[in-house]
Amino acid sequence: MQKIESHACCGGTQEVWSHRSHTLDCDMKFGLFLPPQAQDGPVPALYWLSGLTCTEQNFVTKAGVQRYAAEHGIVIVAPDTSPRGDDVADADGYDLGKGAGFYVNATQSPWSAHYRMYDYVVDELPALVEAHFPITSARAISGHSMGGHGALVAALRNPGRYRSVSAFSPIVAPSQVPWGEKAFSAYLGDDRGAWKQYDATSLVKSTTEKLPLLVDQGEADEFLATQLKPQLLVDACAAAGHPLDLRMRPGYDHSYYFIASFVGEHIAHHARALRA
Amino acid sequence: MQKIESHACCGGTQEVWSHRSHTLDCDMKFGLFLPPQAQDGPVPALYWLSGLTCTEQNFVTKAGVQRYAAEHGIVIVAPDTSPRGDDVADADGYDLGKGAGFYVNATQSPWSAHYRMYDYVVDELPALVEAHFPITSARAISGHSMGGHGALVAALRNPGRYRSVSAFSPIVAPSQVPWGEKAFSAYLGDDRGAWKQYDATSLVKSTTEKLPLLVDQGEADEFLATQLKPQLLVDACAAAGHPLDLRMRPGYDHSYYFIASFVGEHIAHHARALRA
Repeated sequence: MQKIESHACCGGTQEVWSHRSHTLDCDMKFGLFLPPQAQDGPVPALYWLSGLTCTEQNFVTKAGVQRYAAEHGIVIVAPDTSPRGDDVADADGYDLGKGAGFYVNATQSPWSAHYRMYDYVVDELPALVEAHFPITSARAISGHSMGGHGALVAALRNPGRYRSVSAFSPIVAPSQVPWGEKAFSAYLGDDRGAWKQYDATSLVKSTTEKLPLLVDQGEADEFLATQLKPQLLVDACAAAGHPLDLRMRPGYDHSYYFIASFVGEHIAHHARALRA
Repeated sequence: MQKIESHACCGGTQEVWSHRSHTLDCDMKFGLFLPPQAQDGPVPALYWLSGLTCTEQNFVTKAGVQRYAAEHGIVIVAPDTSPRGDDVADADGYDLGKGAGFYVNATQSPWSAHYRMYDYVVDELPALVEAHFPITSARAISGHSMGGHGALVAALRNPGRYRSVSAFSPIVAPSQVPWGEKAFSAYLGDDRGAWKQYDATSLVKSTTEKLPLLVDQGEADEFLATQLKPQLLVDACAAAGHPLDLRMRPGYDHSYYFIASFVGEHIAHHARALRA
């Protein structure tokens, strides 16, 4: 592991690390914010999953999250959104291949050689950072858009692994929208039965833990009606009796200005669970 | 004038506008954050001047300033750092030409055709936004690095025009450091007497208004010893009896992580003056 950036920020340190991922079989970067409280001993961590086209940089440079993480004593771990490198398969377009890992374990060629972002964010990365940094095993997870999908799936599939989960503008039903159908067809193949393990609206039916879902969604989001469809999650949670706090925000779009506006509320939500 | 971006943010609106500048004889963009209070009538404005290589985007996407501006009811006006366009002179290197206007009125060819950023930020832009938006003539000014220099110069040269001034990591003595010597030689010529009107350490000797200077400076700033030299401002203010609050910040560097860490204190400083 190599530290490639380090900046004092809000009393703590914003770092970027590079490491060899055995899960993804490539070099990966992740952002790491260590709050001032981490100087006195291990603290809980929030794992943040970014959206299409993003890297480990977007959330840590644009969301203004550090002041809230410093206030509550929470580490922020922000991985990249896909495997990287010259020998990693890619595709034309922003919604498949690099920058578009969709947090699944690909089973189809050529993607299966490297695209195992589900195992990376759920297993390898937490084990790595908990071993090397002052980070406890009290975990929260959140994300935006494709990363909101990833956060919901990671939490719903792993009861007990996360104390709390939230999402901004998530793709709640990837099996039913163009972004998800394109990515899942490529990464998982045409058997839609295999898609259910990565679809929050399917997973709420079977999860054994009723971990409340906190979701913020802008009403002026340009992808609301075509790709995000929050009503599908409302309906699935109602049918399953799964707790959902969906906050529709008039006027807000899909950008980081939306995330920056409400990330403080999400950090407070996670802090309550992580510090309980 | 044309609105080219608009995003709900922190209860207000983050916009980007394009307009034809008669001062610069080219099209220019500026960022404009309107806090929620602006819906009820005109509010004061903080003019933010960015540093080398920046555009109107950097401060509004990376500083996390909107939540503080919304809290205090202050508009943020964030211009670009130089004239732009295919017919605007440029140079190799990041520290001269486009992205490096240094907030001066150039007198030397080829720069004098467009590089009049001093007049643009002091006169044209405030007149424009005060005429078109709910913005009062209560003004504050701040900036980073080259823009910190610009903010100090604008305030020191125009008694009564700004209620308050602050700077992050400013170039306090451009006449005495490589960045400033290169830019001033090109834009203003070799007569160093003409440089004094754009050098804060000279201007504090002659200004008729003792407007307090608030300056934040990271001690781990990679440009501290070569380009910034805050002690020159300390000495000049002491000799002139000019009030200076210089806050040296151990561990902080020259990045936006530094600005994001302390911008809330600067906005509170300006709010006290603007609301007095």
